[in-house]
Amino acid sequence: MAGTMMIPALVDISDRNEDWKVFVGSGVLIAAICGLVSAATAGDRPRFTQRLGFLIVTSVWLVGALIGAVPLYISSVEITFAGAFFEAMSGLTTTGSTVLAGLDAMPRGVLMWRSLLQWVGGIGIIGMALLVLPVLRTGGMAMFHMESSDRSDKVLPRVGQLSGGLAAAYVTLTLLCSVAYTGLGMTFFDAINHAMTTLSTGGYSTHDLSMGYFDSDAILIASTLFMILGALPFVLYIRAFLPRRFQLWSDPQIKVFLTICLVLTVAIAITRRIYNDSSLEEAFVSSAFNLVSVITTTGYASEDYTLWSNAAVGIIVFATFLGGCAGSTSGGIKANRLYILYKLVAQNFRRLVRPHSIVRLKYGNNEVAPEAVQTITIFFFLFFGTLMIGTVALSLFGLDFDTAFSGTLTALANVGPGIGQMIGPAGNFALIPDGALWVLSATMLLGRLELVTVLILFFPATWTD
Amino acid sequence: MAGTMMIPALVDISDRNEDWKVFVGSGVLIAAICGLVSAATAGDRPRFTQRLGFLIVTSVWLVGALIGAVPLYISSVEITFAGAFFEAMSGLTTTGSTVLAGLDAMPRGVLMWRSLLQWVGGIGIIGMALLVLPVLRTGGMAMFHMESSDRSDKVLPRVGQLSGGLAAAYVTLTLLCSVAYTGLGMTFFDAINHAMTTLSTGGYSTHDLSMGYFDSDAILIASTLFMILGALPFVLYIRAFLPRRFQLWSDPQIKVFLTICLVLTVAIAITRRIYNDSSLEEAFVSSAFNLVSVITTTGYASEDYTLWSNAAVGIIVFATFLGGCAGSTSGGIKANRLYILYKLVAQNFRRLVRPHSIVRLKYGNNEVAPEAVQTITIFFFLFFGTLMIGTVALSLFGLDFDTAFSGTLTALANVGPGIGQMIGPAGNFALIPDGALWVLSATMLLGRLELVTVLILFFPATWTD
Repeated sequence: MAGTMMIPALVDISDRNEDWKVFVGSGVLIAAICGLVSAATAGDRPRFTQRLGFLIVTSVWLVGALIGAVPLYISSVEITFAGAFFEAMSGLTTTGSTVLAGLDAMPRGVLMWRSLLQWVGGIGIIGMALLVLPVLRTGGMAMFHMESSDRSDKVLPRVGQLSGGLAAAYVTLTLLCSVAYTGLGMTFFDAINHAMTTLSTGGYSTHDLSMGYFDSDAILIASTLFMILGALPFVLYIRAFLPRRFQLWSDPQIKVFLTICLVLTVAIAITRRIYNDSSLEEAFVSSAFNLVSVITTTGYASEDYTLWSNAAVGIIVFATFLGGCAGSTSGGIKANRLYILYKLVAQNFRRLVRPHSIVRLKYGNNEVAPEAVQTITIFFFLFFGTLMIGTVALSLFGLDFDTAFSGTLTALANVGPGIGQMIGPAGNFALIPDGALWVLSATMLLGRLELVTVLILFFPATWTD
Repeated sequence: MAGTMMIPALVDISDRNEDWKVFVGSGVLIAAICGLVSAATAGDRPRFTQRLGFLIVTSVWLVGALIGAVPLYISSVEITFAGAFFEAMSGLTTTGSTVLAGLDAMPRGVLMWRSLLQWVGGIGIIGMALLVLPVLRTGGMAMFHMESSDRSDKVLPRVGQLSGGLAAAYVTLTLLCSVAYTGLGMTFFDAINHAMTTLSTGGYSTHDLSMGYFDSDAILIASTLFMILGALPFVLYIRAFLPRRFQLWSDPQIKVFLTICLVLTVAIAITRRIYNDSSLEEAFVSSAFNLVSVITTTGYASEDYTLWSNAAVGIIVFATFLGGCAGSTSGGIKANRLYILYKLVAQNFRRLVRPHSIVRLKYGNNEVAPEAVQTITIFFFLFFGTLMIGTVALSLFGLDFDTAFSGTLTALANVGPGIGQMIGPAGNFALIPDGALWVLSATMLLGRLELVTVLILFFPATWTD
């Protein structure tokens, strides 16, 4: 991350903006501290345990957000430390909620830094979901491993091979996206920034009007496509190079995800025709873009869709829960869990009507282990529990129900905007009190690390021997 | 139910109100129709299957609401048929949402009929939860049977004995409650009506101001106690007469439920001290009454608590989800499910940290079967799925997010009031469009029959052979 800070430093230097010193200074400082810490802790490695694993994963993201906050806090942008930390956490977790207004006039180094945080966070979460969390037997991908614990040695192909492939796919898609954006009329700087925040399904923009600034249907359509690409399982893109086992992952959830996108887009488009008298093209492009932005947990907006109609708002809040596919940069409940829960209900209904029938729970060609179902139950319970407790916590800071509920939800699902005047797509989190920002930062981290990874650290029995 | 209609008829006759003819007429009509139907279908009984069981249970409640709606629709009260059906369904499911304003001036027969619907619905749901749904292996109590399928013949004590005991306890508590209300200053009519809607955790009142009309802390305290009694498992009251197995049911969830009540009451009382400058006594009495009213899914209000503060609203919406104990008249998620989900999380966290430890999932002294956990997963998924789809459905009728979300939630948990100006505790459902009332009626039925019982009828495989 210290190295990454040199990129916005270069941007600021080329702009002759004094903030370049902030990035270079932060980078050097952080490199020095980390160097000293690693020198001081050199020597015996502690024995790896599961609980150490959870602690490390959570710490990496926490420290990452702290490091990300440093240049924002000491830059020329006026921001409290709670705000800077929120902004960095929102970046790294690819949420995209912002406390900053006046983006158009902001030093370009700061804008670049925000985009970079999301881009790094995006590849970070893919790597973590595919390579780290399954080792800890948690996260959305863990269920794919549970079924085959007898041959767990074969489950992961060589880590180097896989992570190289993922990184190559991520970089390639980002480049393609920035080429598309440039071709459709964005400046080079805007194109690079938005490409990074599109593929990471992050949603930070370099303009207060978000994608609405460009006023171009072609850009909205391109963005819709690349957001969908960012929300599909990334192994899909390196499939041909993978051992057979990995190929099983992709199928059912992709269909589920794309179907949901299509159905909800059509639903919103119909409400736009009814309530807003939009032309067919406008209705479809704007509905598809803003809906896909929410469901992929990106969080761009082309306009204030909360003004469309109550019907559209209802559908968009619904979409805020859902999320993209497991193994992508998106957050939320995710299509694989929704699919398995649906299959579980169907299986149970069948068994209630025909007590002696035997129905296997399958995901694609693989049987789903009972422990995998339990993992989903726990995720679901913790998700809604966190949502409600977060809502209460925010309401204690005086926020109204709309803001408290949609703020918690958008943080938990790593989407970005909420509803209501304050934090809706046309607003931002600048007026949220610092205490509530800390709650929201914690919620974003919880959502990004699929709850269990963080919450287990607060469970007393984790630390007793 | 035709017989029950004679009670409001008598009330109207004593008031010299012409509406007595409505009740007598409806009663005779319905008795005649039902007599003819049962004569026409006399003869061979169809073979009992599980799917027939689900169909019968759902039909009983649907037809019950239809019958309940008839006198309301043809009475002197101005009401659409959707409104009358909503009102009757809200009564039978002990929800307590109302489309009627001007209760104070309404014919007393109609008021009595509303209270009777709730009272009948209350004992109906206890009987159904304890005696019928377990046979269909669904509902909140089913999990207590799953563990012992090997000796299922011994599980149910003689049905007659148990249902007699439950009915006796229900009647006794209702009488005690009306004595308490009369002693604290209510008229006899108000006392009887409110006692019936307290013990059934229904919440219909004979006054637009609900319990606020009496302006008496003593009545609020008495009501709080009897609402809690209505939300405890009813087997508790006939415990001494029961075989040993039934005694296991009660314990853990009672502690969970009472603890939640206490913690949330204190939380609201603190917000009242901070934001409303209330006296200590006022803060506690009003917080306890209105919180217990929501969490027991009764739905009385002593004042418009949504005006207290955003903090209080947040806590109250949270409470709307929770519900009382399984085997009571209350709705919502219920304490036994919350307890088991909590234990499941704890068990799983322990296993993640110590992969080789063996932790059993226990409820009281009994081990919880994996199928029971699945049942809870399915309930939880269907609950939140219905909540979100209902919210979208209501928003399609033009309702704003607050109203659509809290309206669906309050119907699903069988509570009564929502939040927002329209359907908050100071409002009612009179301005909700008819289409949305049908959606809400369906949601109340879904919530009351614990979702699966109804939804399974719409699952195609239920009807294929």
